[in-house]
Amino acid sequence: MSFAELWAELLPVGRDEHTGGYWRFSWTEPDAACRGWFARTAASLGLRTDCDGNGNLWAWWGTPGPGSASAIVTGSHLDSVPDGGAFDGPLGIVSAFASIAQLRNEGFLPARPIGVAAFTEEEGGRFGVACLGSRLLAGLVDPDTARDLSDQDGITLASAMRAAGRDPALIGPDEKLLAGIGAYVELHIEQGSALDGMGAAIGVGDGIWPHGRWRLDFTGRADHAGTTRLPDRRDPMLPFAATALAARQAATDHGALATFGKVIAEPGAANAISSSVHAWLDARAPEASVLDLVVAAVSEVAAEAAAMHGVGFELRQESFTPLVSFDQVLRDRIAGVLAAAGQQAPVLPTGAGHDAGVLAARIPTAMLFVRNPTGVSHSPAEHAEPADCEAGVAALTTVLADLAGR
Amino acid sequence: MSFAELWAELLPVGRDEHTGGYWRFSWTEPDAACRGWFARTAASLGLRTDCDGNGNLWAWWGTPGPGSASAIVTGSHLDSVPDGGAFDGPLGIVSAFASIAQLRNEGFLPARPIGVAAFTEEEGGRFGVACLGSRLLAGLVDPDTARDLSDQDGITLASAMRAAGRDPALIGPDEKLLAGIGAYVELHIEQGSALDGMGAAIGVGDGIWPHGRWRLDFTGRADHAGTTRLPDRRDPMLPFAATALAARQAATDHGALATFGKVIAEPGAANAISSSVHAWLDARAPEASVLDLVVAAVSEVAAEAAAMHGVGFELRQESFTPLVSFDQVLRDRIAGVLAAAGQQAPVLPTGAGHDAGVLAARIPTAMLFVRNPTGVSHSPAEHAEPADCEAGVAALTTVLADLAGR
Repeated sequence: MSFAELWAELLPVGRDEHTGGYWRFSWTEPDAACRGWFARTAASLGLRTDCDGNGNLWAWWGTPGPGSASAIVTGSHLDSVPDGGAFDGPLGIVSAFASIAQLRNEGFLPARPIGVAAFTEEEGGRFGVACLGSRLLAGLVDPDTARDLSDQDGITLASAMRAAGRDPALIGPDEKLLAGIGAYVELHIEQGSALDGMGAAIGVGDGIWPHGRWRLDFTGRADHAGTTRLPDRRDPMLPFAATALAARQAATDHGALATFGKVIAEPGAANAISSSVHAWLDARAPEASVLDLVVAAVSEVAAEAAAMHGVGFELRQESFTPLVSFDQVLRDRIAGVLAAAGQQAPVLPTGAGHDAGVLAARIPTAMLFVRNPTGVSHSPAEHAEPADCEAGVAALTTVLADLAGR
Repeated sequence: MSFAELWAELLPVGRDEHTGGYWRFSWTEPDAACRGWFARTAASLGLRTDCDGNGNLWAWWGTPGPGSASAIVTGSHLDSVPDGGAFDGPLGIVSAFASIAQLRNEGFLPARPIGVAAFTEEEGGRFGVACLGSRLLAGLVDPDTARDLSDQDGITLASAMRAAGRDPALIGPDEKLLAGIGAYVELHIEQGSALDGMGAAIGVGDGIWPHGRWRLDFTGRADHAGTTRLPDRRDPMLPFAATALAARQAATDHGALATFGKVIAEPGAANAISSSVHAWLDARAPEASVLDLVVAAVSEVAAEAAAMHGVGFELRQESFTPLVSFDQVLRDRIAGVLAAAGQQAPVLPTGAGHDAGVLAARIPTAMLFVRNPTGVSHSPAEHAEPADCEAGVAALTTVLADLAGR
């Protein structure tokens, strides 16, 4: 089974025919179709599929756990952001299956179990917490809190899982599963164009910038847009606007990144002043101390602008991931074996969060990146050339053969 | 049947238990319940209910049309903005029925037919065009355009009407109906606090500021919030933010009003740069030439900020209502008869659009306003004191007795 065949099978699932983008939110119909594809593909490769209590999928070549050498796991995620690209997530899983198919063809006999993982809700696109599946596995999110997370229609994670035939009572850390894993290597499309600038098809991850998400609530007073005098207004849209501009300025000042990609004005009538505006700040920086400065600068402008307009303001951290440095021994071994195989793979950092970054807190993890010529991601325009995808499969095959071969 | 009894019957329909606000969009279930209330109330007062081809309701005391003296119509609308107040619209209709009940009790014999009208989609809350029912009646909106208007779920007006048992083929101007009407007097809660400042319970409308709605589309490029370098971004949120601040500045500079109450960022993910931001500008001014200056200033800033961020920008006028001066003869007659009855009612202008403003293009119209102590409207906090509502009913009764009595 070639990479191209596997890729073509998954490609239509959850695609928006108008935009060409993907809507693969966890525990929806497209998600179920992705899971079906995962299980069928695993079966055709002679792998056994498990679903853990958090909804993460695992396909096993060999049996991990007590009595076995620690397993080598690769994988990524199948869910997408709203109208996302085809590569972010699925590339790692399709490449994993393609690598295993190639190892099988070559008659490779693994000395350790090899696993393919598909982590659920990596994007947080439905329930708002990024890397939810891996965070739950690693015991980094409280199970009760997770069960109560709700999507924009008010459906909780617990009821969404129940509707998909999963028991939400099983949500929580899985120490036995983690204990059986010796290393996790995630292959992912680069979400940026650093590799392109270096002329390299693949790269090895160095670490992940500290990053987080903050929710800003501006509470004003709904009023008639046509009759309320300007001085009588408490319009929350105005401090939000000032804050969005301040965030870009703070990011520029500190060499960081800051984005407002989600904003909800309530009640949302064109002829009424908003009662409230809710906005989400995504901020990332090379160091946590710099990130603190960015968020403090944004918060200060927001509070001042809100006060000036008689508007209430609250800021709440919704998620935070500290600086992740991938396992140096594992990273150097991967870079070394790729170099020995003639597969050039420079080491590079990233601003994007990944399940590998979450799991780095518990087990040795590493990442392989595949060149993204435009750097565009989280968009229908996200793209990687077929030859670069093949180079990714070849690199992953080399790495798996090395790590699981002895 | 007293005002208080009629008011209490309608009050629960479409109310949000959490906010206390109203969701009465046209051709929805709450709208059907409002229409049922209208027909039952009319029947209990011995009035005959009609629904015209545009979905506007009419309750008749007497029979308008050829062979009859021209009718006196009063009324307002039953639909609401999202999470709107209880008074905006319904106050005029409840007051109309209460006035007719009082005239009946007093044994009044009308020399002309008296009608109560409930115009559909006055707020434009579902299909985006304010005063849609009265505009269609008056021939000011093309019927095909109206049939194709769609709500945020993509449901067209035609299919919404069909689902409610109405034939959308009947949409369009109704010259026969208009020809039978001698005057339209709309009672409405004031959407501002001018009457409160004057210490008056009721007022008579002078005119309506020119006003309109413009849609602004900022088209950028979706991208990953965590990896896209600031100079590589085409983030439409930033020119929108600059434009929202510019609109307030332009309104301040020109003694006008400008509001962004509705904004939609797509795809709306917290960890993705938006592909596009759509925003709606509501602007009003004492004169059309001033309104032009405000919109030009907003548009200039928007275009400049969009260009600076590599973002596309388009501005489209969605609606425009020129300056409306109510019929002076009718206005002076109403002010005179109220003064003679000892019902103090100062004359005042408004920035809000009303069906009376639309119909002023075709028939003599006038408005009565009821004091709003806080001026808050289009909000659950909208309020009028019961005594002021009673004063409104008394004034409307005086006016109807005068206009229909000879």
